[in-house]
Amino acid sequence: MAINYPNPKKTTTKVINRSNLGMTLEGDIESTNQYYLDKNIAVIYKKPTPVQVVTVSYPARNKAKITEAYYKTPSTTDFNGVYKGYYIDFDAKETNSKTSIPLKNIPEHQIIHLKRIVDAGGIGFMIVYFSAVNEYYYLPFDVLYDHYQDSLKGGRKSISYETFQRDAYPIKFGYNPRIDYLKIIDTFVIPGLLAATFCK
Amino acid sequence: MAINYPNPKKTTTKVINRSNLGMTLEGDIESTNQYYLDKNIAVIYKKPTPVQVVTVSYPARNKAKITEAYYKTPSTTDFNGVYKGYYIDFDAKETNSKTSIPLKNIPEHQIIHLKRIVDAGGIGFMIVYFSAVNEYYYLPFDVLYDHYQDSLKGGRKSISYETFQRDAYPIKFGYNPRIDYLKIIDTFVIPGLLAATFCK
Repeated sequence: MAINYPNPKKTTTKVINRSNLGMTLEGDIESTNQYYLDKNIAVIYKKPTPVQVVTVSYPARNKAKITEAYYKTPSTTDFNGVYKGYYIDFDAKETNSKTSIPLKNIPEHQIIHLKRIVDAGGIGFMIVYFSAVNEYYYLPFDVLYDHYQDSLKGGRKSISYETFQRDAYPIKFGYNPRIDYLKIIDTFVIPGLLAATFCK
Repeated sequence: MAINYPNPKKTTTKVINRSNLGMTLEGDIESTNQYYLDKNIAVIYKKPTPVQVVTVSYPARNKAKITEAYYKTPSTTDFNGVYKGYYIDFDAKETNSKTSIPLKNIPEHQIIHLKRIVDAGGIGFMIVYFSAVNEYYYLPFDVLYDHYQDSLKGGRKSISYETFQRDAYPIKFGYNPRIDYLKIIDTFVIPGLLAATFCK
């Protein structure tokens, strides 16, 4: 369970602050994906949380009741789908630090998964929310991967806020869609892919 | 639970018959996907079955135990992923009829989902297994959709075996990969996509 520490600065800001509206990062992204779906823009879903079912009972006809089960660690990221023919794959992370996001917040299996995605021609990234400053960023996978590899060689174990300002793309929080990450893909990612390979 | 009816013909066939090996269609596809992943060919996963969790207890530290939960109907198909930059999305169905597969075996929400996928530039299809003759087919979404629309207008409520022989692509069952559906995509689907749009 996340603990919401009091943050006096939040009361003075004029920008939309989702923490006042009972929203969560995941909920905001699901709302954004629903907007894309409703407008026929993209088909992107959150994968269900995997559950290891141990015991099922049948107290009533046609309705199986799971009576013993455990959460499993997902082997992939939370979100994937298709936009303009491109395969999209990402996860979302939140940090309440003003200065960086620790790499330990990003499980290694997600980095391995995103590496495979990018190698297979997909678009992989992270959405990172700095809650202390109420800012969202699209973090391209290559930036994440560079920092991950540095950390394996003894480099710093986090990605600094300055790196986000320099190498990531800010996503403006809006009413609907709330976190319009496809705008970043349209503006910065797809042109790069088209330039790299004239045709597939 | 599926009931395996005795089928005298199965004992006389020389082709690999997975029903003798304790395999399932879903298991064969998961094995195929694992092969693609291990060989860095494609990244395609089965989505977890969605579960509505009602009650969780904490009998031991760090291990949540789900004590009441129910299966939910998935809103999408079972499998998706990326191959050569293309978004891949499909489900798998089995029929023990020799003459057709009933459209009621394919839930409407999966047809709606695949329609959205294809409209967004992804590759959507079904893998259909005719267990009586031990044959696998790649059924392109447009063929499925034509039959679905016909059925809504009062047409037949199934897709005939003859349609599969004419408009679908047979997938030869193998040892590893077992159901090499990407070979169909390589040979028949991607060339068509490239011809339709020289560049995206």
